[in-house]
Amino acid sequence: MKKLINSPDRVLVEALDGFGAAHGDIVVVDQEHRFVRRRALAADKVALISGGGSGHEPLHIGFVGHGMLDAACPGAVFTSPTPDQMLAAAEAVDAGSGVLFIVKNYEGDVMNFQMAAELAASPARDIQTILIDDDVAVEKSTYSTGRRGVAGTLVVEKIVGAAAEEGHGIDELRQLGERVVRQTRSMGVALTSCTVPAVGAPTFSLGDDEMEMGVGIHGEPGRRRMKLARADAIADEMLGAILGDLDARAGTEVLLLVNGLGGTPAMELYVMLDAARRILTDRRIEVARTLTGPWVTSLDMAGCSITVSVIDQRLRALWDAPVHTAALRWRM
Amino acid sequence: MKKLINSPDRVLVEALDGFGAAHGDIVVVDQEHRFVRRRALAADKVALISGGGSGHEPLHIGFVGHGMLDAACPGAVFTSPTPDQMLAAAEAVDAGSGVLFIVKNYEGDVMNFQMAAELAASPARDIQTILIDDDVAVEKSTYSTGRRGVAGTLVVEKIVGAAAEEGHGIDELRQLGERVVRQTRSMGVALTSCTVPAVGAPTFSLGDDEMEMGVGIHGEPGRRRMKLARADAIADEMLGAILGDLDARAGTEVLLLVNGLGGTPAMELYVMLDAARRILTDRRIEVARTLTGPWVTSLDMAGCSITVSVIDQRLRALWDAPVHTAALRWRM
Repeated sequence: MKKLINSPDRVLVEALDGFGAAHGDIVVVDQEHRFVRRRALAADKVALISGGGSGHEPLHIGFVGHGMLDAACPGAVFTSPTPDQMLAAAEAVDAGSGVLFIVKNYEGDVMNFQMAAELAASPARDIQTILIDDDVAVEKSTYSTGRRGVAGTLVVEKIVGAAAEEGHGIDELRQLGERVVRQTRSMGVALTSCTVPAVGAPTFSLGDDEMEMGVGIHGEPGRRRMKLARADAIADEMLGAILGDLDARAGTEVLLLVNGLGGTPAMELYVMLDAARRILTDRRIEVARTLTGPWVTSLDMAGCSITVSVIDQRLRALWDAPVHTAALRWRM
Repeated sequence: MKKLINSPDRVLVEALDGFGAAHGDIVVVDQEHRFVRRRALAADKVALISGGGSGHEPLHIGFVGHGMLDAACPGAVFTSPTPDQMLAAAEAVDAGSGVLFIVKNYEGDVMNFQMAAELAASPARDIQTILIDDDVAVEKSTYSTGRRGVAGTLVVEKIVGAAAEEGHGIDELRQLGERVVRQTRSMGVALTSCTVPAVGAPTFSLGDDEMEMGVGIHGEPGRRRMKLARADAIADEMLGAILGDLDARAGTEVLLLVNGLGGTPAMELYVMLDAARRILTDRRIEVARTLTGPWVTSLDMAGCSITVSVIDQRLRALWDAPVHTAALRWRM
């Protein structure tokens, strides 16, 4: 295993310490490393809390700040955070307007956020949940019943985060998030496996000429193992699966996210973006917004995912609204 | 070779097309792909132009925009751009206040920017050059006489870019850039080689338990091949070399850049940042600003570099000044 770490059992704490020191103007890292919260909490605002296993950075800690999350709970690598983390985060950021959990559809996350909701709820604290299951690759997987939640999570966190800044109530925000989930689909491809620090060996093995189409962000199996293909063919297969499951007819406006899985450099992601744009334009789907980069990663995995979100004027305005987090920043 | 591309000879053009489509609000990609320029050119401002071989993205194209570069000329992968590219860029962005070239110290870049300066200069157009040679690893290398220019380039482009927005003249900007170069040192380490698309095989080979200390951003040899070490030991060796060559006594204020080389995920970079911060703090050097991420990459190479810049109140203010580029954005 080749990693820039001191030891597998120190990697998360040291990374959080480095993150907190680097972005101390935006976030506060809890002393017990249970959560990362916004430094400047807003009054009278629904608190948005997400979390999940670490190893997908910048998701979720890099999206804490104005216009996105109020707190994020980092679990051990590829392991759900425990309910006490979400409980502590809720107590730290609850401004009296309710707490909205944003949860990727993995069994551990779903169970632990549900337990946290039961522990944290009170007559004075309304807790609701948005469940994200945007991955069209498979209908069930190693750690999930139903579809997995992947890079579409960023879109939900950005759009619901912007609406929360506008002061909307928790019911409305949950419904908005659920609408974004219904209109968002993703699929990924791996050229290499990731290596979990505590394991020390690749999660799966791929031949020198193979890729895993439909891979999950923890290295879960996808739809099929296939020969390495050209960027255009990869984008075509991923978009075929996405658009086959999404109501995105000619004339529809979409947000296109080309997401790096950690080990793939920018140049290849822009090649994939170019390929995806050509395919969507051929179908007369209007690519109104794009985002390209390593946003929802899988440690050091080489590969990418494509996410398409159907948007309209309202969702586009929320996407464009100011955001100031460690990883995502615009108009501020 | 496992890459998300269509073909090695199309990768640069397609990546530039994707980049231009993604960031069309900030940049314009020249139709012949000779340069990327700011969409909104400022009047009466010294034009800053950089460039170099591609494969180091987001450097330089990702740093074109308000507060940094006016244009960047992307060469083929790891190959200097040709003088006609810089000439075309100069003609596209010259606002009549002179053109400042920012050049990393590689023989091809130095020669081609020099030829471009001769071609583009006229009685009406003053052209000057800042040469960057921040890499302390080796005194000469495969493609360079004297020290190589690496991630410190980002610091020069940011600080001189901010000063150019303030309206300073070309002599003052060149002198400012030369001061930043004198006060900036870097060193890198590779855990794996990169693979150049047109070559199709790793540039060098490293054993499963080896790393290359002092590697160049094209995979040039460093100081020594050594056994993989802990993050703290790696940071200690790199900072030892950097601080041994930099006047950064106790009480000095510095900017610390932990730069990913392309294949290393954020978690490891924050571990390295945490390690570097502890070492600098132990020496009573004040880490006033940090930046962490894959900013000056080497295709898919796993590894990182550390850059330390001595700053003062003036340089800190220029670093903090608004910037709005594809890759680096704050206060706008």
